[in-house]
Amino acid sequence: MNNHQDNMTQYNAHFIDSLVRSGVKHAVISPGSRSTPMALLMEEHPRLRTFIQVDERSAGFFALGLAKASQHPVALLCTSGTAAANYMPAVAEAKISRVPLIVLTADRPPELRDVGAPQTIDQLHLYGHTAKWFAEMALPEAAETTLQYVRTQGARAVFESLTAPAGPVHLNFPYREPLLPDYDGVYERMLIPAPVRLISGKKVPDSIMMDDIAKALQVEKGLIVAGEIIKPGIADAIVSLSEKTGWPIVADPLSQLRANHKAIDSYDAFLRDDEVKEALKPEAIIRFGALPVSKALMLFMKRHHKIPHMIVDADGGWRDPSHIATHMINVDEVAFCSEMVKRLDQKRADWPKMWQDVNAAARSEMKKAEGMDEGALFQRFLQAVPDGASVFAGNSMPIRDLDSFLFAGEQNVRLHGNRGANGIDGLVSTALGIAASGENVFAVMGDLSFFHDVNGLLAAKMNGLSMTVLVMNNDGGGIFSYLPQAGEQKHFERLFGTPSGLKFDHAAALYGCHYARITSAAQLEKELTEKREGITILEAFTNRAENTAIHRKLWQNAIEAVKKVIR
Amino acid sequence: MNNHQDNMTQYNAHFIDSLVRSGVKHAVISPGSRSTPMALLMEEHPRLRTFIQVDERSAGFFALGLAKASQHPVALLCTSGTAAANYMPAVAEAKISRVPLIVLTADRPPELRDVGAPQTIDQLHLYGHTAKWFAEMALPEAAETTLQYVRTQGARAVFESLTAPAGPVHLNFPYREPLLPDYDGVYERMLIPAPVRLISGKKVPDSIMMDDIAKALQVEKGLIVAGEIIKPGIADAIVSLSEKTGWPIVADPLSQLRANHKAIDSYDAFLRDDEVKEALKPEAIIRFGALPVSKALMLFMKRHHKIPHMIVDADGGWRDPSHIATHMINVDEVAFCSEMVKRLDQKRADWPKMWQDVNAAARSEMKKAEGMDEGALFQRFLQAVPDGASVFAGNSMPIRDLDSFLFAGEQNVRLHGNRGANGIDGLVSTALGIAASGENVFAVMGDLSFFHDVNGLLAAKMNGLSMTVLVMNNDGGGIFSYLPQAGEQKHFERLFGTPSGLKFDHAAALYGCHYARITSAAQLEKELTEKREGITILEAFTNRAENTAIHRKLWQNAIEAVKKVIR
Repeated sequence: MNNHQDNMTQYNAHFIDSLVRSGVKHAVISPGSRSTPMALLMEEHPRLRTFIQVDERSAGFFALGLAKASQHPVALLCTSGTAAANYMPAVAEAKISRVPLIVLTADRPPELRDVGAPQTIDQLHLYGHTAKWFAEMALPEAAETTLQYVRTQGARAVFESLTAPAGPVHLNFPYREPLLPDYDGVYERMLIPAPVRLISGKKVPDSIMMDDIAKALQVEKGLIVAGEIIKPGIADAIVSLSEKTGWPIVADPLSQLRANHKAIDSYDAFLRDDEVKEALKPEAIIRFGALPVSKALMLFMKRHHKIPHMIVDADGGWRDPSHIATHMINVDEVAFCSEMVKRLDQKRADWPKMWQDVNAAARSEMKKAEGMDEGALFQRFLQAVPDGASVFAGNSMPIRDLDSFLFAGEQNVRLHGNRGANGIDGLVSTALGIAASGENVFAVMGDLSFFHDVNGLLAAKMNGLSMTVLVMNNDGGGIFSYLPQAGEQKHFERLFGTPSGLKFDHAAALYGCHYARITSAAQLEKELTEKREGITILEAFTNRAENTAIHRKLWQNAIEAVKKVIR
Repeated sequence: MNNHQDNMTQYNAHFIDSLVRSGVKHAVISPGSRSTPMALLMEEHPRLRTFIQVDERSAGFFALGLAKASQHPVALLCTSGTAAANYMPAVAEAKISRVPLIVLTADRPPELRDVGAPQTIDQLHLYGHTAKWFAEMALPEAAETTLQYVRTQGARAVFESLTAPAGPVHLNFPYREPLLPDYDGVYERMLIPAPVRLISGKKVPDSIMMDDIAKALQVEKGLIVAGEIIKPGIADAIVSLSEKTGWPIVADPLSQLRANHKAIDSYDAFLRDDEVKEALKPEAIIRFGALPVSKALMLFMKRHHKIPHMIVDADGGWRDPSHIATHMINVDEVAFCSEMVKRLDQKRADWPKMWQDVNAAARSEMKKAEGMDEGALFQRFLQAVPDGASVFAGNSMPIRDLDSFLFAGEQNVRLHGNRGANGIDGLVSTALGIAASGENVFAVMGDLSFFHDVNGLLAAKMNGLSMTVLVMNNDGGGIFSYLPQAGEQKHFERLFGTPSGLKFDHAAALYGCHYARITSAAQLEKELTEKREGITILEAFTNRAENTAIHRKLWQNAIEAVKKVIR
């Protein structure tokens, strides 16, 4: 083995082994030449599972889904140039939704940069503020100090991606030709020392401060609001707090708290009315997780802003677009809840009862959606999804329909979405990444979202993955029909409605997926209960104007029913 | 009209009108809510043509192609969040290939940033070093000083995108709700003053320095090398210089110099042999344009580096990855050529004759490609493309085949590619953007490239555009068969070959394109001569191993033929 090849081999093998020993289990690789040494040594590692996706944008979101579901950082590898630029959308989503990604980009060595060499862009700090941490790596060498550095960088990349708030990190690798390492059996042949171990504490509460907070929470009418929660354990702690205080939990679908049958689930319908909002006025709010999807809920909280409003976030985020927080509590959520359980008690029973009664009245109206309306289909979809499966809801309307039609305690499913930046990009790939982690995924998304990331389906074909996708095809941007833009007839369809006329039976044929057109709720249920390998695409053609009208009618009926309860 | 709406309307109308009056003729819009005020006022402007594309990544490349072909900056508009991140690959390509793009991103206002608000990422300096210029705009207002500032920013965005080297600029617009402007008939109703005018000089040569350079070029055997040249006028100046000095022009296909029948076109074949390279050793080289695609040519120049090697680039680039330049000449190319025409003369006739004879011998061998080999198909493709049309060659193999099979003086076509960062992304959209500028585009690309940007086809459907695409489907990454990776059987197909098994008749059906499977060169010719509206996809299934073997055989035969000439 010549010296250059030995440098390439040892340097990269030590790095990858360090990633794996620090907790990375999966890598998503896009083909390319400059990334050859890393790709071959990844493929060769016995404890690293690799996935292939040609489109780097889709690869980025696939890794995001895989990391989110597996709760382990996922490595991404691509060649130099615009390939790396394609990761940007997934990096942006990972940053805000706090998902650990380790982006590895191959690059030209220093002498080939900024001199017109092919496939070369400025990759240093390519993702700017969007990556949590960036390192330009040294040129490959096999000197002992270099290998030590490389192992440490591998471990540190994992650490930096995981340390609160978790997020994307970026390492750029300069490689000189020739690019082929001596990879065959390298991990059996080579004795690679363990990298530095990662030990990280958690933010524990201060007892005196907890006393102060509990004092501020000595109210009769408290409310717990939970947005998306990814970390395990928090949901149970919130339930304990609710049980001790009697405070209702207003639970966003992604909070995973709708598994609890007492969670308030139909608030997005009934919090649209001023009389109802006054009747349900709380005296204090404790909020966990990301921002809930419901705008009605946000406006409700904004209306009642002259009360203690506490945001608990161990990761130190500042998730308060309404600027109504009175306390930002940067403390481990589980520890916070158990401290409050010690200090708070239930003061009256009519408060939770009113919320339960109101919610029950609204819910029974929301359940009346029927026919080929998207709400009705969504409801049937959720009922038919098997126990223990995962539901991935796309952005724009599906996540809102999940909010409206996922009824507490009725389904035992894990819920996912991309609610960091709420993009309609990368949704197919994110859902597939979740499937790659071993979950049984049922995704639902609109036609524009499905179109945007239809390339994501290639990963299923190339890596043998299975998933079911329900496409709500309302021929364009359904959400705009709910917004003020809907009144602007002159340019509405061209700029907002954007009907594409796409029908996805052809996309199914392109990627070798099973396809069925859904014409009734009963047929949807039937299709969902069939067990199939590979990708199943179910397409329901719906109507934007009808959907809007039916949703509005349901909300109105829910409010009427609720008013009878509170009067 | 309430005050907020008036602010929104005037501010955005003044900005857009300033863009248009400074030279922007086209805008590419992706649907979104936050971008509503800008979108409606763009749509309303009588002298701005808008195009719609839902996928922002494709929209970015569409704008790139349109700007490249039209030689005018093109505006891009999207909503907030990951939408903006999707422009990154096109922004990177525009930066290196010097294409003026004006990226306009809508954003949340300051109070909604970094506080967990939906669809919000950090958009400030989102493209980092990759954008030439960035401005965070003020909140909309209709005060006279604000409108003056806004008009100036519009004009300046155009100026910054055009000033050498041209490239992408980014302006970020914070918008508060409500988002609807009072757009109807606004440009007739409103008297918008003209923005500041843009006047920019060019780099003229210094006479004494030109004397010095001419002295260094008093050699018998000079060579002119031309890579991609986008700016008009330069090609003619180079031809004049060649005619005066007798120095051969080694012309990359994108130099547009192969329109000249005396251009050297088959160098990539014959410069692979040491004996030939020695026989053709020059005493000085003048290089224009971007790096040529031919690696053989680059290695030839690197071998003969102890001679004056002058790189002429008015835009001040440093396109010299081999570090062999002796002079970096940052002077207007046309002016430089006319100064040299005054000072240089032809010294011997056998030197250009040898190059012509060698080239003719190699070319006649290269013309012998036949059957369903990609080279043979490419040749037939070029012959069949109508006079005055444009050929867009994809990256990886197609641009190399264009280099090999575009014979000087035989076709009257305009040539395009994406040779900034040489990505396989965004090629369908770039070609469509060129078509949108009014050119009759015939694109050719590999299956992985076509897959990567198949979403680009939606722009054709939504904006009524026509184009023909020939897909060379060799089921994976054809270029890797020419690289050392090809020897690594163990992981080759999974990591490099990456056979996707995709057949694009289904993609054609999805986007409503005409489709034909190509089974012979004769049929290809027939399909190419039919006149059709909309998109025509022609798909030829070829074999990676055969293509490599045939290319190698052609090169070998060319070298044998050349050796007979030089011996």
